[in-house]
Amino acid sequence: MSSEALTRLAEERVDHRFKGLPPDADGLTVGELAAQRRNLFAEADGFTTPVLALSAERLEHNLALMETYAARHGLAFAPHGKTSMAPQLFQRQIDHGAWGITLAVPHQVRVARAFGVQRVFLANELVDAPALRWIAGELAADPAFRFVCYVDSVRGVELMDAALKGSTRPVDVVVELGAGDGARTGVRTEADARAVAEAVAGTATLRLVGVAGYEGEVPQADPERVRSYLRRLVALAADLDKGGLFGRAEEIVVSAGGSAWFDAVADTFAEIPGLSLPVLKLLRSGAYVSHDDGHYRRLTPFARVPEEGALEPAFRLWAQVVSRPTPEQAFADAGKRDAAYDLDLPAAQVVRRGGVERPADGITVTGLSDQHTWLHTEEGADVEVGDWVGLGLSHPCTSFDKWQLIPVAEADGTVVDYIRTYF
Amino acid sequence: MSSEALTRLAEERVDHRFKGLPPDADGLTVGELAAQRRNLFAEADGFTTPVLALSAERLEHNLALMETYAARHGLAFAPHGKTSMAPQLFQRQIDHGAWGITLAVPHQVRVARAFGVQRVFLANELVDAPALRWIAGELAADPAFRFVCYVDSVRGVELMDAALKGSTRPVDVVVELGAGDGARTGVRTEADARAVAEAVAGTATLRLVGVAGYEGEVPQADPERVRSYLRRLVALAADLDKGGLFGRAEEIVVSAGGSAWFDAVADTFAEIPGLSLPVLKLLRSGAYVSHDDGHYRRLTPFARVPEEGALEPAFRLWAQVVSRPTPEQAFADAGKRDAAYDLDLPAAQVVRRGGVERPADGITVTGLSDQHTWLHTEEGADVEVGDWVGLGLSHPCTSFDKWQLIPVAEADGTVVDYIRTYF
Repeated sequence: MSSEALTRLAEERVDHRFKGLPPDADGLTVGELAAQRRNLFAEADGFTTPVLALSAERLEHNLALMETYAARHGLAFAPHGKTSMAPQLFQRQIDHGAWGITLAVPHQVRVARAFGVQRVFLANELVDAPALRWIAGELAADPAFRFVCYVDSVRGVELMDAALKGSTRPVDVVVELGAGDGARTGVRTEADARAVAEAVAGTATLRLVGVAGYEGEVPQADPERVRSYLRRLVALAADLDKGGLFGRAEEIVVSAGGSAWFDAVADTFAEIPGLSLPVLKLLRSGAYVSHDDGHYRRLTPFARVPEEGALEPAFRLWAQVVSRPTPEQAFADAGKRDAAYDLDLPAAQVVRRGGVERPADGITVTGLSDQHTWLHTEEGADVEVGDWVGLGLSHPCTSFDKWQLIPVAEADGTVVDYIRTYF
Repeated sequence: MSSEALTRLAEERVDHRFKGLPPDADGLTVGELAAQRRNLFAEADGFTTPVLALSAERLEHNLALMETYAARHGLAFAPHGKTSMAPQLFQRQIDHGAWGITLAVPHQVRVARAFGVQRVFLANELVDAPALRWIAGELAADPAFRFVCYVDSVRGVELMDAALKGSTRPVDVVVELGAGDGARTGVRTEADARAVAEAVAGTATLRLVGVAGYEGEVPQADPERVRSYLRRLVALAADLDKGGLFGRAEEIVVSAGGSAWFDAVADTFAEIPGLSLPVLKLLRSGAYVSHDDGHYRRLTPFARVPEEGALEPAFRLWAQVVSRPTPEQAFADAGKRDAAYDLDLPAAQVVRRGGVERPADGITVTGLSDQHTWLHTEEGADVEVGDWVGLGLSHPCTSFDKWQLIPVAEADGTVVDYIRTYF
């Protein structure tokens, strides 16, 4: 990556663009503010609610755990960058051994390239002509740039070929195998996969380098169905290899793995047979970096393999109680603009008042308005106007995307860094 | 507002921060790109999907319509800026006669002040000490800055007073009257309102200038319940006035009005009796600026008063079909990161292929992933990989907040401006 571009992040000015930061930090650079080591909870230090914070210790724990996990299982790792869209985290993921970064749409590739990411796995079809021409330009300008994207239709191959005519380096593609009837993108049958692969072989602008899929969309997923789909994916790689369809590749990419089934991916990919070329077994899990207090806490494979470790939820959203109109109700100042709400509502975890933090007993989040948290309070729940409520979140992807500059705080509240996101 | 700060927006560089813009525009200023008058639909002009566009004509129509509406009904207008968080739109709203801008949280006030908004109505309680100290600083530094926020508890008044000790100008506050049992913020009874008003009177740091409420939260809202609540609000203003509680004010603010009941607000506020001071009847509707194709299309008061005009949905989200794995399914490249999904899913409206636009017959949005639109296609629905699908959105607040620089396009696709947002 480009240390120069990352360094420039520390030179950005703290201003009205960024929520939750101390008003009196306006005009400081991000680096200067970080050097002040302000405390998130010290009123004099000026953080304003709502403010999302990442735990420094938990972030590092999660980064290290997935590095260990991937290495133990012989997997290359391209964590999905759509989760955080944070070049500083991309850098730390790469420092922790990641092969590259997975992304979903061309805009995200532009962000990664602006920060010098060398290997991008675009886990999506890409048929947009201006975006493809831009990719071709990046490939032409930087011999070290490696880019792979999906194909799942002959028409898509034709559109790509038309857009890329005259480009100097072929675009590497993998055939996406859909995860079952009614699942998301990807060819539904092995015959369709072969037809798409052959269409790729018929172009000079594309190069088939493997297969990929997303087991997270297996209908009625359970361990057996997920493994069955992943075995189909492995068999497809072997079949296309036997057919000579990876003839121009230097290695064969086999990729799967969201954040709910990477144990099944590890097991299944361990059984990939010898192919005609070296195999890059590429895992793409992204949510691990922050983990969460809801969806992924329930789904994480580490619950099935506790001997391999455990991820730790690294986000906490701090909101302030602004209204306490009845004994059963309280309202805090975080809303849909601040908290993920697509999979679960936030959960009240702790309450802070006068420097003392205690469990949020008897306090339940019952809804979010654009700019309010609705709290139901049981009899005896001790919550007052002015209290800070610490909220756990569910779904990292829709938590990161509501914050453009996120304080990273140590356990005592000392803010040691700020993470810039680009959504 | 500050024309200098607005001018600087046109000097910002187009780069990886902004989704959907032409990759080859990288490095141009926003003003230079606008001057090129590129076409959203011309492949050579390079816009990439997903891309959200605002209709130039409809935006202007909506701005003019609400100006007329407010003027006709003798209402001052402080459109809720949380909807767009776009200083350029704030300026146009003020140019169209708005008294000021309504906001919800201190961060939004910082954005408004960075662009020189002179009158801010914070339709929310504010007890955050660092934010209050910053507000006090703004008031001290700029005699023309007018700021009003809500109070709904004696404890909130105490916290405000403590934070504002020593400030040079008092902070203007209005008592918020809750919209009923189980509704959102705001005192539940007139007795509580009076207690809060008296607490304000007991401080030197605050000045009571009126009452406010949000009829959009009236439980089981219907025209009669909404009017009944608004009449309580008006009566509360009269009662506090009679009690001499606005003694330090120069005018009495009575404020209500989201985007679903402003006809009831207009009717009820027309009946405000003579008070001891001039009355500022302040309407706060915000969603009108873009309107929508879902929630507010159903709820708009203009459906009840068609003789007063009609708002027009000004957003269209363009996504590209990247996968067509079965005759019943297609997938486009816009997802939760791009489209509002909190009140309704987007609706497929039109399909574009080869420069021809036609209705999206037989195409239904059935879901959103983070980065995909799930489309169900009926037999005979003509949609292919590469097609652009134009999507209507529901809920302006959660549409604007997914885009930081939004092309404004004329009906033929010519992009004439770019709207910067700050969330």
